[in-house]
Amino acid sequence: MAASPPVAVIMGSQSDWATMRHAAETLDALGIAYEARIVSAHRTPDRLVAFAKGAKAAGIRVVIAGAGGAAHLPGMAAAMTPLPVFGVPVESKALSGQDSLLSIVQMPAGIPVGTLAIGRAGAVNAALLAAAVLALTDEPLAERLDAWRARQSAAVAEHPDTSAP
Amino acid sequence: MAASPPVAVIMGSQSDWATMRHAAETLDALGIAYEARIVSAHRTPDRLVAFAKGAKAAGIRVVIAGAGGAAHLPGMAAAMTPLPVFGVPVESKALSGQDSLLSIVQMPAGIPVGTLAIGRAGAVNAALLAAAVLALTDEPLAERLDAWRARQSAAVAEHPDTSAP
Amino acid sequence: MAASPPVAVIMGSQSDWATMRHAAETLDALGIAYEARIVSAHRTPDRLVAFAKGAKAAGIRVVIAGAGGAAHLPGMAAAMTPLPVFGVPVESKALSGQDSLLSIVQMPAGIPVGTLAIGRAGAVNAALLAAAVLALTDEPLAERLDAWRARQSAAVAEHPDTSAP
Amino acid sequence: MAASPPVAVIMGSQSDWATMRHAAETLDALGIAYEARIVSAHRTPDRLVAFAKGAKAAGIRVVIAGAGGAAHLPGMAAAMTPLPVFGVPVESKALSGQDSLLSIVQMPAGIPVGTLAIGRAGAVNAALLAAAVLALTDEPLAERLDAWRARQSAAVAEHPDTSAP
Amino acid sequence: MAASPPVAVIMGSQSDWATMRHAAETLDALGIAYEARIVSAHRTPDRLVAFAKGAKAAGIRVVIAGAGGAAHLPGMAAAMTPLPVFGVPVESKALSGQDSLLSIVQMPAGIPVGTLAIGRAGAVNAALLAAAVLALTDEPLAERLDAWRARQSAAVAEHPDTSAP
Amino acid sequence: MAASPPVAVIMGSQSDWATMRHAAETLDALGIAYEARIVSAHRTPDRLVAFAKGAKAAGIRVVIAGAGGAAHLPGMAAAMTPLPVFGVPVESKALSGQDSLLSIVQMPAGIPVGTLAIGRAGAVNAALLAAAVLALTDEPLAERLDAWRARQSAAVAEHPDTSAP
Amino acid sequence: MAASPPVAVIMGSQSDWATMRHAAETLDALGIAYEARIVSAHRTPDRLVAFAKGAKAAGIRVVIAGAGGAAHLPGMAAAMTPLPVFGVPVESKALSGQDSLLSIVQMPAGIPVGTLAIGRAGAVNAALLAAAVLALTDEPLAERLDAWRARQSAAVAEHPDTSAP
Amino acid sequence: MAASPPVAVIMGSQSDWATMRHAAETLDALGIAYEARIVSAHRTPDRLVAFAKGAKAAGIRVVIAGAGGAAHLPGMAAAMTPLPVFGVPVESKALSGQDSLLSIVQMPAGIPVGTLAIGRAGAVNAALLAAAVLALTDEPLAERLDAWRARQSAAVAEHPDTSAP
Repeated sequence: MAASPPVAVIMGSQSDWATMRHAAETLDALGIAYEARIVSAHRTPDRLVAFAKGAKAAGIRVVIAGAGGAAHLPGMAAAMTPLPVFGVPVESKALSGQDSLLSIVQMPAGIPVGTLAIGRAGAVNAALLAAAVLALTDEPLAERLDAWRARQSAAVAEHPDTSAP
Repeated sequence: MAASPPVAVIMGSQSDWATMRHAAETLDALGIAYEARIVSAHRTPDRLVAFAKGAKAAGIRVVIAGAGGAAHLPGMAAAMTPLPVFGVPVESKALSGQDSLLSIVQMPAGIPVGTLAIGRAGAVNAALLAAAVLALTDEPLAERLDAWRARQSAAVAEHPDTSAP
Repeated sequence: MAASPPVAVIMGSQSDWATMRHAAETLDALGIAYEARIVSAHRTPDRLVAFAKGAKAAGIRVVIAGAGGAAHLPGMAAAMTPLPVFGVPVESKALSGQDSLLSIVQMPAGIPVGTLAIGRAGAVNAALLAAAVLALTDEPLAERLDAWRARQSAAVAEHPDTSAP
Repeated sequence: MAASPPVAVIMGSQSDWATMRHAAETLDALGIAYEARIVSAHRTPDRLVAFAKGAKAAGIRVVIAGAGGAAHLPGMAAAMTPLPVFGVPVESKALSGQDSLLSIVQMPAGIPVGTLAIGRAGAVNAALLAAAVLALTDEPLAERLDAWRARQSAAVAEHPDTSAP
Repeated sequence: MAASPPVAVIMGSQSDWATMRHAAETLDALGIAYEARIVSAHRTPDRLVAFAKGAKAAGIRVVIAGAGGAAHLPGMAAAMTPLPVFGVPVESKALSGQDSLLSIVQMPAGIPVGTLAIGRAGAVNAALLAAAVLALTDEPLAERLDAWRARQSAAVAEHPDTSAP
Repeated sequence: MAASPPVAVIMGSQSDWATMRHAAETLDALGIAYEARIVSAHRTPDRLVAFAKGAKAAGIRVVIAGAGGAAHLPGMAAAMTPLPVFGVPVESKALSGQDSLLSIVQMPAGIPVGTLAIGRAGAVNAALLAAAVLALTDEPLAERLDAWRARQSAAVAEHPDTSAP
Repeated sequence: MAASPPVAVIMGSQSDWATMRHAAETLDALGIAYEARIVSAHRTPDRLVAFAKGAKAAGIRVVIAGAGGAAHLPGMAAAMTPLPVFGVPVESKALSGQDSLLSIVQMPAGIPVGTLAIGRAGAVNAALLAAAVLALTDEPLAERLDAWRARQSAAVAEHPDTSAP
Repeated sequence: MAASPPVAVIMGSQSDWATMRHAAETLDALGIAYEARIVSAHRTPDRLVAFAKGAKAAGIRVVIAGAGGAAHLPGMAAAMTPLPVFGVPVESKALSGQDSLLSIVQMPAGIPVGTLAIGRAGAVNAALLAAAVLALTDEPLAERLDAWRARQSAAVAEHPDTSAP
C-alpha cells in the first residue's frame, strides 16, 4: 500500500508555495517524484495528524516541510512520523524568517528536524538533502545527483562578469 | 460532564514546572482551581490531541500553556480548542527564551495565543490573565482579583531601601 | 451605566489603524460590537487614564490595544483596569516591530498583557482571542466562532495552486 | 513651593536600586541633591501620575528614571512632565536589558527620553548628564563636574597592570 | 565670545541631513536658534576636536549629534565637552540602525550621551529634549514648549479615521 | 573498501566533544556504529579535504558535524561529499551559539546541511535523524528507533512532580 | 614565479560582484593592481584549495574575500594561506548580512580574518586596509593613500546642503 | 625617530587587559616586539589623538585596539593614522560584546578597521594578523609564523579524548 511518491513537500499555506516551488523544481530536475500538499498545523490539525501518521505506510520516505512565523508544521510532522523530516523556514514579513528559523530548528532532544536556510536557498537545499538521502540506496539517483553537483561546479565562472550591473 | 477545573496549566516537560509553578501558585492565591499536566507536543502528540480536543467538553475554560525552545505546545493546543489559550515562553538555555517567545507569539492569523513574558513573570501573569477572564462572570473572583491588585500596589514602598545590597 | 460595547479597540495613533482595522474587521465578521479609539499613552496620558479607569464601568469587557515602537499603551491600560488586555505590536519602521513586541510582552509579574503577533496577524488574532473570551458565556457567539474556524479550515486547499506566481 | 531637590531618581521597583544606586552615588560625588523614589508605572500608576504632573512645581529640574523589561516608567513620566527625563535600562534576566533598552529609547516623536546605557554605566551616566544640564546655570557645579572629569582622565594609567589577573 | 547659537546640530555626513533636518525643523518650530554642521568623527577628526573643545566657549549649550553605523560622533563629542550631548542613531542600510543605536547608547560610565530613538522620531525628540533643557532657565521657551505639547495632545483625534487607506 | 562505520561524528575541536558526546551516546543507544573524529576546518584543512572526499568510498553513509562560532566544518564537508550532512551548532561563549547556528544553517542553494538545534539537543537529534535515514533501509534499526521513540513518549509523566525544586 | 598582482579580490559568486566591485574600484583609484576571481568555497572547493595554497607563491600579498550568508570563503582561505585575509560580509537577503558578518568575523583563535563592514562600505574599506598594509613598504603608495585620505577629509562640507531632499 | 616597537596594543581600560593579554602573549610567542598602552577614547581623548597621530612617526607599523560596549577606540585611531588598525571587540556585560562588535566593524567607507572575533579568540587573532602583515617583509618572522601554524595543526588530535569530562 505505497501509493505515494518517495518525497512529500508540505507547506502551511498557499503563500508558502512561492518558496517551496524551488524544492519542487529541484526534485523535478533530479528526477525524483513527489507530491506537494498544503497541510496547516494550525488551521488543519486533523489533516496534519492524518498525513504524518500515515506518511510511512503510504510509501513516503522523506518529508520536506516549509512554514513561516511560528512555524510548527515541520516539528509537529516529525513528532508523528519516524521518517526524516527536513524543514524550510519561509521568510516572514516582519521578522524576515528569524521567527520561522528558530521555531523550526530549536527542537528539543528527541524529535529532530533537519533545518535548511531561510527562503529559496533552503527550499532548493531541502530537495538536495532529500536526494542525498534517497541516493544512499538508489545508484542511478546518486549518479544524477553527482552530475547535478558537477554541473553546478562547472557553471562557476573563473572571473566575475565586470560588465554586469 | 465537566469534571475538570476551569483552568488547565499544561507544560511540555517536567523541567518547565520550575517556571509554571508560579502560575499555579498565583492561581492558588486567587482561589482558582486548576489542573497541572505535562503535555508534550513533540513526545506525546496523541495526548496533546486528546487534551486539546476534549478540553472544552471537560469543563476547562482557560488553557495556560508553557514551553521552551521550538515551543509548539501553546499554538497547537490553540489549533484544536476554541478556548482562550495563554502561552508562557519558558527560558531556554542557549537563547534565553527568545526562541520560545517567537515560537509562541508569532502565530499566523486565525489561531491566537495570548502570550506573556519569558519565564517566571510570564507564568504569574498568565494566571492573572486567566483570572481576569474568569472574573468577567464571577463577581467574587473579581473582588479577590481587585484585592490582590490593591495589595500589590500597596506593597510598593515609597522609597528604595538603600541599605539593601 | 454600560454604554460601551463589549470590546474596545484602542491604538496609539491614526497610523496604527492600518494594522488595527484587521481587528475591527474580524470583530465585525464575528458579530461582536466594539468601539475604536485613539488613545496615545504619550501624547494623551489623561485620555488613557480616563479610558482605562472607566472601561469596566462603561461596560467594556475586553480591551484590544495596538501600538508600535516603545509601545506603552497596552501595558499602561492593563495597569489601570482589571479587564483582560490583549496587545498588538504594530510593525515599526526601523526595527520591524521587534521593539513593539518586547515593549508589550515583557511586562513584569503583576500586570498581564496577552500579546499577539506583530502586525496584521496579531490584530486579527486579538479579535479572535477576544471572541474566545466572550464566547465562554455567549453560546451564540461560540457557535459563530466555531463556524468561523470551521470555514477557515475548510478553506485550506489540499494542494498548492502551482499556477500561482 | 519648591520642596524637592533638583534631581529625582525614580525606579520601578526595589530591585532596580542595585542599578540606580550608582546614579545616586554619582550625584552624591558631585554634590547634587536628589530624592530617590520607587514609582511603578504598572503597579502604582496613580503615584506615577501624581509624581510626574507635580514634579516641576515641586522644584525638580531633571528626572532620572530606571526600569527593566517592558520599561514604561521613563516614557510615561516624560509624557506627563515638561522636564528633561533621562532613562536607564535596567538589565533584565532573560534578555539582558535589550527589552529595557528598546522600551525606553524607541519613543515616538513628541515625547523624548534621553536614554543611557544598560545597567550600572547607564545609571552613572544619567547622573553625569543631569549634572551637565544643571551645570549650564550653576558655575560651581560646572567646576565640580570639570574636576570630576579631570580626575577621571588622570586616573587612566598609561600602561595596563600586566600583573592583574 | 559667544558667537554660536545655543544648540549645535552636528552630523557625520550630508546623507544624515535627511534625518537631522527633523531636529532642525523642530528647533525652528520652537523658536530656538541653532547651527547645523557636518562633523565627521572619522573623516574630519580635527574638526571634531576643534568643535567639541570649543563648543562651550563659543556659547553652545546643548549638542545634538546624529550618526549612523559605527556611530562614534556623539560619544567622541561628549568626551571633549562638558555640555550635554544628545545622540540620534541614524538608520543604517544593512542593520536598520541597530548598529547606530548600540554605538551611541552603550557608552561606558563616565561619558554620557542621552540617546534618542532611531531615525526621524529621534531627531525630533533630540530637539524637544534640548528645548526641555533650555526651558529650565528660559520661561518664554518653557511656555512655547508647553504650548507645543498641548497642541500635540489636542491634535490626537478621538477616533481613527476609518476611511483612511 | 568500506572500512568505516555508517556514521561519522566529526567536530572542530576537543572542546566540542562535551556537546557531540550526546550524539555518540544516542547512536550507541540505537545500536548504530560510528567513528568520532576531530576535523578542524581551519586548523586542519587537509584533513577535512581528505575526510570529506573519502567518506563515501570509506563506507560512511551519514556525516554528523558539530562546530561553534564561525562554524565552517559542516558546510565545507557538505561541499566535498554527496552524503547527507547534519550540522550541530555548538554553543559559543559570547554569542551563545547564534553565530554557530547562522554559520551552519544559512548555506547557499546547492550545498545543503540539515541543521539541528544549538547544543546538546541538537547533538542528540543529529543522531536520531541519522537513525531515521539509515532506518529507511534497515528494518531492525527502524524497529529499534520506533521502540526508542515509544519509550520516550511513555516516559512523559501525566502530571508534573510538584515536589521537585 | 610571481605572476599575480599583489591583491586578490575573491568572491563566492557572480552576484557578490555588485558589492566587491567597490573594492576593485578603490584599488584602481589607489593604483594598486589586483585580480578579481570567483572562488566558491561550497561549489568549487578544489578551486579554493588551489587558490589559497598557491596564493603566496604566485605573488599575492593580500587577499580580499567577500561572501554572503553562511560565508565560509574568507575563513577557509585564511586556513590555507599565511597571507593576511580581509573579509567582506555581503548583505544577504533575509538576514541583511548579519549571518555573513558572524560567519566571517567569529573565527576561532588561530586563523584570523580581518573583517570589514557589511556591504559596500566594507568592500571599499577592505581595499583601503590592503593599501595600508602594502603602503608599509611602498612609499609612493603611502603617499597616494595619504592624498586619498586628505581628499576625503577635504570633501566634507562644513554645513549640510539643506536644499537637498 | 622610531623609538616604538612595530606593534602597539592599545585598549580602552585596565579591564580590557584580561582580553588583550592574549594578543600580547601571542606576539611574545612569535617574537614580535610590542608596547601595551591604555588609551581611552572617551576618558583620555587627548592621549588618543597624540598616540594615533604620532604612531607612524614613532615607528609603529600595526595597531591592535581592543575596546568594549560603544567601542570607539579602534575606529577613532584608524581615523588619525594611515597604519593598518585591527580591532578586538571586548565582551561586554549586558550584551556579550554584540555592541562592541557592531561599534567596531560597521565603520563607514573611508576609514577601515580590520575586525576580529569577540573576546580572547579575537585578541589572539589580531596578533596573528599583525604577524601576517609584518611577515610580508620579514622572512624570519614568516618562518616563525609558518612554524606556529604547523604546530597548531599538528596539535589537533585525530580523535576526541572521550574520557574528558
